Amino acid sequence: MTGPGDARALAILCGGGAFPLEVAAFAKASGRPPLMIGVVGAAEPGIEAFAHVWVRLGEVGRLFRLLKEHEITDLAIVGAMTRPEFSDVSLDWGAVRRAPELARLFRGGDNHLLVGIAGIFEREGVKVVGAHEIAPQLLAPAGLVGVVRPSPEAEADVKIGAAALAALSPFDAGQGAVVADGRIIALEAAEGTDAMLARIAELRAARRLRFKGPAGVFVKAPKLGQDLRLDMPAVGLKTLEAARRAELRGIALAAGLVLINDRARFMQGADGAGLFVLGFDP
Amino acid sequence: MTGPGDARALAILCGGGAFPLEVAAFAKASGRPPLMIGVVGAAEPGIEAFAHVWVRLGEVGRLFRLLKEHEITDLAIVGAMTRPEFSDVSLDWGAVRRAPELARLFRGGDNHLLVGIAGIFEREGVKVVGAHEIAPQLLAPAGLVGVVRPSPEAEADVKIGAAALAALSPFDAGQGAVVADGRIIALEAAEGTDAMLARIAELRAARRLRFKGPAGVFVKAPKLGQDLRLDMPAVGLKTLEAARRAELRGIALAAGLVLINDRARFMQGADGAGLFVLGFDP
Repeated sequence: MTGPGDARALAILCGGGAFPLEVAAFAKASGRPPLMIGVVGAAEPGIEAFAHVWVRLGEVGRLFRLLKEHEITDLAIVGAMTRPEFSDVSLDWGAVRRAPELARLFRGGDNHLLVGIAGIFEREGVKVVGAHEIAPQLLAPAGLVGVVRPSPEAEADVKIGAAALAALSPFDAGQGAVVADGRIIALEAAEGTDAMLARIAELRAARRLRFKGPAGVFVKAPKLGQDLRLDMPAVGLKTLEAARRAELRGIALAAGLVLINDRARFMQGADGAGLFVLGFDP
Repeated sequence: MTGPGDARALAILCGGGAFPLEVAAFAKASGRPPLMIGVVGAAEPGIEAFAHVWVRLGEVGRLFRLLKEHEITDLAIVGAMTRPEFSDVSLDWGAVRRAPELARLFRGGDNHLLVGIAGIFEREGVKVVGAHEIAPQLLAPAGLVGVVRPSPEAEADVKIGAAALAALSPFDAGQGAVVADGRIIALEAAEGTDAMLARIAELRAARRLRFKGPAGVFVKAPKLGQDLRLDMPAVGLKTLEAARRAELRGIALAAGLVLINDRARFMQGADGAGLFVLGFDP
């Protein structure tokens, strides 16, 4: 249990997937056992392996009371969170008090929303920290990560994808692109990475994209100025499986800026599937 | 039959869909009955209502002989053409002679490919003309096209979409985006407009995008510097149906730069579905 004894007590606000558990394990191993705050309907039951509480979306007042009770000073917000419709959320009094501010946040891109949420926490004296600050071991390093090497053509495709993502950055849109033979064949927006990669597999199956054998590179980077404390781009086993089904040549990640979940199994899978994994200078 | 008597004899190289037939009808009405050159496997049988011949992909030598025989001086390339894999095309001798040049074209974006193809025709003395030059009546005008007016919020979304497409232009990628509540929710690449709009409908159905009622604007514009003679962005009844299923608020088209196929029925359908159609200054 995280309690008054800790100098900087850490909580993890947990969305979906296994990622909150990985971050928690790293935090615990480095001597900062976290309080897991599971969002009902999003977080996995597995968070109960750590000290934990559950909150519902909209229980903003209760969340702040919990943070105060446990004397939490640092909060990481980790895992997949479906962007809720503001009107779907049943608000408690703590939320109602902050409603005008929350409502304003719901207009605009994801980054706008998240930065606003971080601001609300920080005004209540809780510092929002990034998963990468708690568990830097999870970040993509620079250079070749696995054993498969990219061809010069694939490296050129990585550059095109990285430049296109940089050009889109001011619009608070996608974090991912697929580039093949010098051509951008997919750009990610609300559908997310897995759906974008599934699209490539479908277009190939339908012969709308006609490549012989492996083709294309998945490029992932945060938006310029993206608040990485809240919305760190991440890849994992699902991404890898989607890349394999899309018959890509490889995966390129902005070095130091993209998290690789479950790294050992991820790299084992990538090497086995003949996919290169590259950290590029963003 | 287009013959030696015409001062500037026109041919239309026909890809899929009804659009080549519309352009042909306009050309004929304005006193330039075209020779329809149907690409086998792409063009509709309806082209046989006009003077016509059929060619297979790769029959480049034969195509140039046909253009010479019919003394064609102006060629429009119209309708959907699946981007072929170079190695799938069986080449005749006229193609083999141009093979190194053709192969070079197949690396890079669509615009690169099309500009190169236009160059090949023009070196053979055939001027490549745009469908919009033959049938300017088909272009989106500036301002409100139908009876439904956009809200100020929707107009702001149009501006965001237009700016994002402009930013992507140097990358020879998408021509379309969907923007809702200030946020880019879809960007078009190889999947094409209809699939991108279908994605919005799916994300809504799966509650991955949660809007109450109509939301979002589809924005379409050519890439900056795109060669409009060869690759004019176009919308039609299928686009409209896809926009309706995605429960969008409206459709915004770069004025003077996007073709509206089957305009009367398109606008009747848009008005009936409560969708605004707006021509914006690109």
